[in-house]
Amino acid sequence: MSRSAHTAAQSTKDRLIHAASDLFRRRSYAGVGIAEILNAAGAPKGSLYHHFPNGKADLALATADWASDGMLKLMAVSFDGAATVDDGITTLCHKLAKLFDKGGAWDSCPVESALSDGPDNIVFRERLGHLYEGWIAEVALYSEQLGDDPDTARARSERFFMLLQGAWTLARARQSSDVLRHLPEIARAPL
Amino acid sequence: MSRSAHTAAQSTKDRLIHAASDLFRRRSYAGVGIAEILNAAGAPKGSLYHHFPNGKADLALATADWASDGMLKLMAVSFDGAATVDDGITTLCHKLAKLFDKGGAWDSCPVESALSDGPDNIVFRERLGHLYEGWIAEVALYSEQLGDDPDTARARSERFFMLLQGAWTLARARQSSDVLRHLPEIARAPL
Repeated sequence: MSRSAHTAAQSTKDRLIHAASDLFRRRSYAGVGIAEILNAAGAPKGSLYHHFPNGKADLALATADWASDGMLKLMAVSFDGAATVDDGITTLCHKLAKLFDKGGAWDSCPVESALSDGPDNIVFRERLGHLYEGWIAEVALYSEQLGDDPDTARARSERFFMLLQGAWTLARARQSSDVLRHLPEIARAPL
Repeated sequence: MSRSAHTAAQSTKDRLIHAASDLFRRRSYAGVGIAEILNAAGAPKGSLYHHFPNGKADLALATADWASDGMLKLMAVSFDGAATVDDGITTLCHKLAKLFDKGGAWDSCPVESALSDGPDNIVFRERLGHLYEGWIAEVALYSEQLGDDPDTARARSERFFMLLQGAWTLARARQSSDVLRHLPEIARAPL
């Protein structure tokens, strides 16, 4: 079932973004055709090129931005009122585990799947880097606000980002969100 | 340039596996067609179905197995003669950083990219889980041999797997293998 079926009335532009995000997550940018996106969004071809002049490529960029904005909001909500960095990260991990379960335990990272188009697509490459650095900077900022010095905040955020990407991959392979839910303990274990 | 161009005479079967692995890594399972694989491998269609009766799906499984075997060999070489788990992991990370640089700093995980075909492909899903658990078990085994108790070895290996997947993702986004090379320090930092 597509996510868009659950939501209230949406603009054609939003329907295109949501439908494309669903499809890219399941079969990646290269594996999805325009006709399929239009069909899933219930949108005519003209509306795609009206909102996204370069078609699928522009739509992929918009999709990645939208998904990244969603992640940044999830971070803001998780750290809002958190007493420690650990608290904020724990809340975030639980929210992501729920999201993973909702997506049918298979969807890949919506930012990476939308922007996977080989080494020659410099625009996609640079956007991917830009969005990921934005996530790392955001968690680092919250960590600083909660008392970490800048270097510690940065290192902690970068490590959390890596663990999270890896945990999502492992959760997909295992078809279980357990590893996401237990990520805070895993991250802090003194090995 | 394709990897196969650098190597000595190969069987048609091996050429098919290597060509498919290259292509899947760049544009994922769904984004690559059979004609393209045959062309890159310089192989006739009949040879594909002779070696892989179910065509692209069988080839993807063989590709993932081959890539996973390569990772297991890299682990064996890295831990061979290592005095500590840290030494083994450090050598492995340096080898992976070199591999990343060789691949043009963009290739995705060869196992995941070959087996990405949506939630309904249970065969792919289960194989992905099986291969990843094999990597985790392998590093855990070396850690035990180097003195870790089984629980610590397992936890350490699982955490290393996650950090490695995340580091590879970040290296791709940054177009730099630095984060792979520094992964041992990142993994052991007491945050």
